[in-house]
Amino acid sequence: MEEKKQGYNEFTIEGRNAVIEAFRSGKTIDKVYILDGCQDGPIMTIKREAKKQDTMLKYVAKERLDQMSETGKHQGVIAIAAAYEYAQVEDMLALARKKGEPPFLFLLDNIEDPHNLGAIIRTANLAGAHGVIIPKNRAAGLTATVARTSAGALNYTPVAKVTNLAKTIEELKAEGLWFVCADMGGTRMYDLNLTGPIGLVIGNEGEGVGRLVKEKCDMVASIPMKGDIDSLNASVAAGVLAYEIVRQRLA
Amino acid sequence: MEEKKQGYNEFTIEGRNAVIEAFRSGKTIDKVYILDGCQDGPIMTIKREAKKQDTMLKYVAKERLDQMSETGKHQGVIAIAAAYEYAQVEDMLALARKKGEPPFLFLLDNIEDPHNLGAIIRTANLAGAHGVIIPKNRAAGLTATVARTSAGALNYTPVAKVTNLAKTIEELKAEGLWFVCADMGGTRMYDLNLTGPIGLVIGNEGEGVGRLVKEKCDMVASIPMKGDIDSLNASVAAGVLAYEIVRQRLA
Repeated sequence: MEEKKQGYNEFTIEGRNAVIEAFRSGKTIDKVYILDGCQDGPIMTIKREAKKQDTMLKYVAKERLDQMSETGKHQGVIAIAAAYEYAQVEDMLALARKKGEPPFLFLLDNIEDPHNLGAIIRTANLAGAHGVIIPKNRAAGLTATVARTSAGALNYTPVAKVTNLAKTIEELKAEGLWFVCADMGGTRMYDLNLTGPIGLVIGNEGEGVGRLVKEKCDMVASIPMKGDIDSLNASVAAGVLAYEIVRQRLA
Repeated sequence: MEEKKQGYNEFTIEGRNAVIEAFRSGKTIDKVYILDGCQDGPIMTIKREAKKQDTMLKYVAKERLDQMSETGKHQGVIAIAAAYEYAQVEDMLALARKKGEPPFLFLLDNIEDPHNLGAIIRTANLAGAHGVIIPKNRAAGLTATVARTSAGALNYTPVAKVTNLAKTIEELKAEGLWFVCADMGGTRMYDLNLTGPIGLVIGNEGEGVGRLVKEKCDMVASIPMKGDIDSLNASVAAGVLAYEIVRQRLA
C-alpha cells in the first residue's frame, strides 16, 4: 500500500474474465496464481495465454488466494501485472546512440530476489548503463518491491524482458556488443579490456550464470576473492564489476 | 525470544548454506532442527557434520520450524549456536599482523538494514578485510538475518561493537591507520591513494556518514555517478569502494 502511494503501481487482477482480458489486451503479466486443481474452460484459456507469453504460473491453495485477494472475488485466479512498462532492447541501443556513448547493458540471468533486482537497477542507473535485460521466466519481475529498492532508478533506466537471453546476446553481438559474464573461474577483471560496447551478464544468486548463456559470452571475468566464503551478494558483485567497467571507460 | 536476541545468549542459524558454513568454521552448534523427511544433499551434509560433532538432531514439522524462524527463510533447517562472540578491535590488528598484511578494516556508521549489514560483512570477508567495526547504539546488530545474509562470513570475519566510532578512529590512527569515508562531495576514488593500513567508513543508508565521524577521516572518496538518482545501495557502495582498495593493493 505504501508503494502504491508513491506511485509504484504493481497491481493484482482478479477473476477469470479480468485475467483473460488482461492477457488479450497485451498487458504485461508477471505471474499468475491459480487455485490448485482448477481445470475448467476459462482456467485452461488462462493457462494457454500464460504459456504463449512465457508467464510464470503458480498453483496455490485457496487460503493463499484469499489472503492475496483485495476484492474477495478471485474465482480461483489472481494475476500480478508489472508495476512498470517494460522497454524494448532497441530502445536501449537508441538511448546509447542519443547520448553518443558505446552501449552498456546489464543482462541478468535469473536474479530471483526482488531486493537484488532493485539494487542492480539502481547500480545500472548510476554506472551509466543504458538498460537492464531480464529473462521472462522464473526471474523476479518489476514488482513494487523492485521499484522501491531501485530508489527511483526504475523511472530512468529501461528494463526489457526477453524470452531467451542467449538469443538476445547473439542479436546484440550483431550490433557490435561484447559480452562479459561474472564467474569464479574467469580472468581477473582488471586484466580484461572492458571498454567499448559491452553487455555485463550477472548470474543467479545460487547457481551463477547458466551454461548456455555463459557459452555466448566473449569474456569471463572474476572478482578477486581473498576470503573464506564462496561469493559476493549478487547485487554487490554486479556493482563491483559495473564499476570496473566505469573505471576502464573513464581511464 | 526478544530477550535472547538482545543478549545473544543463544543464536539461531537458518538455511542450509549458513548451517553448513557454521559447522565448517568450527562454531559450537548446540542443536539442529531439521524438517522431518528432508533427505537432500545439503541436509545429508548437515546430518554428517552434526554426527561428527555430537550435535543433537531433532526432526520436526514445518510448523515448528516456521514458528522458530526469525527470518522466515529456514529452508528446512535451523541450528542453535552458542552465543555469538563479538571480537575486539585489537583482535583485528593481531589478525592483520599474523597474515603479514597492512590492516584493512570496515567501519559502519549506523547501517540499519540487517540485509545490508550481512552483505557488507560478506564483502569484507571476500575483499580480505580483517574485521568490521559497528557502533553499539542504534545500528543493526548480529541477528539471524545478518548471519544468513552474510552467507557464512560472520564465522570468519570478526565484528567488534564500539561505543564511539569517532574515538575508535582516533585510537586506530595512533596505530598507523588512515581513514577514508564515502561521500558524494569527495575526491574521485581512483585519484586517491588507498593502499597501506586503511579503515573504510561506510555511512548510514539514508544520512550517509555522520559529521563527527567524517571530520575524523583523512580522505573523502566519491564513487563516480553518471545516473539520475542520488546514491547506490549502501552494501553496493561498500563493495565498490572496498574493491577499489583491493585493486590498488594488488596493483
